[in-house]
Amino acid sequence: MGFWKSLFSGSDPLVNPASAADYSEGLQASGRAGSEQSNIFFSTERDIDLYELEELCDAVGWSRRPIRKVRKAIQHSFLVVSMWERRGNYKRLIGFSRATSDHAFNATIWDVVVHPDFQGRGLGKALMQQVIRHLRNEDISNITLFADPHVVDFYNQLGFVADPEGIKGMFWYPS
Amino acid sequence: MGFWKSLFSGSDPLVNPASAADYSEGLQASGRAGSEQSNIFFSTERDIDLYELEELCDAVGWSRRPIRKVRKAIQHSFLVVSMWERRGNYKRLIGFSRATSDHAFNATIWDVVVHPDFQGRGLGKALMQQVIRHLRNEDISNITLFADPHVVDFYNQLGFVADPEGIKGMFWYPS
Repeated sequence: MGFWKSLFSGSDPLVNPASAADYSEGLQASGRAGSEQSNIFFSTERDIDLYELEELCDAVGWSRRPIRKVRKAIQHSFLVVSMWERRGNYKRLIGFSRATSDHAFNATIWDVVVHPDFQGRGLGKALMQQVIRHLRNEDISNITLFADPHVVDFYNQLGFVADPEGIKGMFWYPS
Repeated sequence: MGFWKSLFSGSDPLVNPASAADYSEGLQASGRAGSEQSNIFFSTERDIDLYELEELCDAVGWSRRPIRKVRKAIQHSFLVVSMWERRGNYKRLIGFSRATSDHAFNATIWDVVVHPDFQGRGLGKALMQQVIRHLRNEDISNITLFADPHVVDFYNQLGFVADPEGIKGMFWYPS
């Protein structure tokens, strides 16, 4: 993890590279239990409980993937940003995203997920802004992704453009 | 480079991981000088002369990129496949492609280039087939790319599908 700590060290006032900092731009969540206040924070640490991540992905209906491959994918992603709810001493994984990259020109964002309990209050946008900020801080000029049809508008609002200059996203299928 | 040698070791009868093997499936090129026979081979080695690569990219009209960043991008690509013409003791870089990946699920192919002198004889297709084969050998299930409009048909012939199930390729632009 030393590489990542140094990579992002001091680069972003919103995210503490060593652990994770509070994100205090209007993301104070209303306490669902009605008692203890909760807040939302982001982290670029990779030591995520993969079973907790699997639960998050289950919650949005994604197909299960082998934990071993998910571990490898996280290890070899250029950037991982997770989103957490903190309530007292308890923290809960409520969002996730990662990006592959050549560390120089291009990055591609994968696996953007926000728990359904936390959707509809701008947290997906906040998560993506963290991802974009980190990639820009690393001087990545070409930030790309592949969007399912129902989230194209969401990404449009964040500054993503579909098929610019007629460029098409393509996927290979075995013949 | 040890990682790459072991990664591809013995996985592909067409490409020798340690150096580079002849590609003998109908790619015997006609000698332009009319005398010495030439042949085409592929390599996954990364010790490419970056000025020779720059010349190749110049030949197809790509914008110049800082050599330092190109070096970093190659270093951090999951796969690099170069295509060479060998004529006696002389070899010339005539094609290039690379892919970023999370080493588990996804790969994205970038910088596909074939020298204009060698276009129109199936070498772009052969280069891409090498890339796909290597990625499949590494159990990458999701092979993606972003295609300029004039090469969408080329990639279609190789098994790539644009916007499958309405998925859109998107690029981020600073606001």
